[in-house]
Amino acid sequence: MRHDIQSTRRSFLGASLAAAGGIGAAGCASTAAAPQRRSSLLTPNCKVLFQGDSITDAGRDRNHADQPNAQAALGDGYAWFAAAGLLTAAPTTGLRVWNRGVSGNKVFQLAERWQADCLALVPDVLSILIGVNDLWHAKNGEYQGTVAIYERDYDALLARTRQALPSVQIVVCEPFVLRCGAVKDTWFPEFDHYRAAARRVADRHGARWVPFQAMFDAALAYAPPAHWAGDGVHPSAAGAALMAQTWRDVVEGRATVR
Amino acid sequence: MRHDIQSTRRSFLGASLAAAGGIGAAGCASTAAAPQRRSSLLTPNCKVLFQGDSITDAGRDRNHADQPNAQAALGDGYAWFAAAGLLTAAPTTGLRVWNRGVSGNKVFQLAERWQADCLALVPDVLSILIGVNDLWHAKNGEYQGTVAIYERDYDALLARTRQALPSVQIVVCEPFVLRCGAVKDTWFPEFDHYRAAARRVADRHGARWVPFQAMFDAALAYAPPAHWAGDGVHPSAAGAALMAQTWRDVVEGRATVR
Repeated sequence: MRHDIQSTRRSFLGASLAAAGGIGAAGCASTAAAPQRRSSLLTPNCKVLFQGDSITDAGRDRNHADQPNAQAALGDGYAWFAAAGLLTAAPTTGLRVWNRGVSGNKVFQLAERWQADCLALVPDVLSILIGVNDLWHAKNGEYQGTVAIYERDYDALLARTRQALPSVQIVVCEPFVLRCGAVKDTWFPEFDHYRAAARRVADRHGARWVPFQAMFDAALAYAPPAHWAGDGVHPSAAGAALMAQTWRDVVEGRATVR
Repeated sequence: MRHDIQSTRRSFLGASLAAAGGIGAAGCASTAAAPQRRSSLLTPNCKVLFQGDSITDAGRDRNHADQPNAQAALGDGYAWFAAAGLLTAAPTTGLRVWNRGVSGNKVFQLAERWQADCLALVPDVLSILIGVNDLWHAKNGEYQGTVAIYERDYDALLARTRQALPSVQIVVCEPFVLRCGAVKDTWFPEFDHYRAAARRVADRHGARWVPFQAMFDAALAYAPPAHWAGDGVHPSAAGAALMAQTWRDVVEGRATVR
């Protein structure tokens, strides 16, 4: 039995992602750049690094942090589900995946550990999901951050990354929440401003955008918010599985983003 | 923001699935047909039906069995994870997905309820995962089945389906086990004969093959058997998430099978 890519026709998924993108457009601050076809960011022997907060961390074992491709090192969240799909479909391509997400992190805390937990790993593809704590911890009084500080710090982090790793492919994942659990109406519209800031940062630094909020907004037609994230912030297995599919569609170039 | 398909190049995923297929070849009875490029089986407004045993059932709520696209009706397994990915990527295409898997079923029990639970729904795409109970229940004395009976009954079921629904697209999922929990060495090589029989049935009836055993065999490089299925038969969330990605790759035509 042999598998090979079907790359000669416009697929149902293509049309469907257009629809999903349309939904996404309602909630993001995308600049109106011309649409572009994109290729996969993944190449043989490439190194992929997932960075972020608890959503990315997902219980990973720090004792295995340096070991690529091992479930214990990758946790139980979207990063692991996406890695497992990639690695299982591509067992012989030399792909190496790491996860260095840390629970509770805000964007300035990524910067504090960036040399050891990003630059030293010299990733070819760097995927970042950060932002919900920048608002959450400000709302609960643990942090004095603002949208402007988030955008400034995120811009500085990506500029520093691009300077140290000129050829790195950067993936910026849209911060998201489900309206349940810890997520209160008082988070809005401010949370939407953090999402818009993340999109501006992604566009300024030529990063590929993964529309997680748009995805979850569309998913609410099929299951309630708590099904996807019980506390509104941390995805369930179903939420993580859905994130992994969307992440792969974007990163593997099955979707392009305007 | 707008998404669109990237369909102009051979992708990393294509090469990677070739590798996965190579692994699959070691364990299946694929006929040596010439490789074919395949299109997506999914078209706008199509009806997809998942059929099988407890792996497909995955705790679905019978009270919602007639309701397409609802999580409660689709359970918490690979069928739901695949449906959620499809529906969220394609919220406007009119796709409708049902699940009528029933825990404990063997292939002859699918036949007993086939008129109501398959033919009456007139699916455009029918996905079947059946076989582990045909062996398991024979091993534990609950059933007198054999590989020959499984293959005979499966052939008859698909012939009946094709006669009633001449245009249905059939997807046959490879029965699989992980070597842990309830799965004993005494299941082998007999279980491999059930997998081979399922592949022969798929080829005889022009069905698309989803190589779940090959997928899990490849996944063992990254996590132990119990991570994917605690009892060796029923997938964990990670196992179900991986199955959903592979099912979509095959059914959406990103992979072709020799």
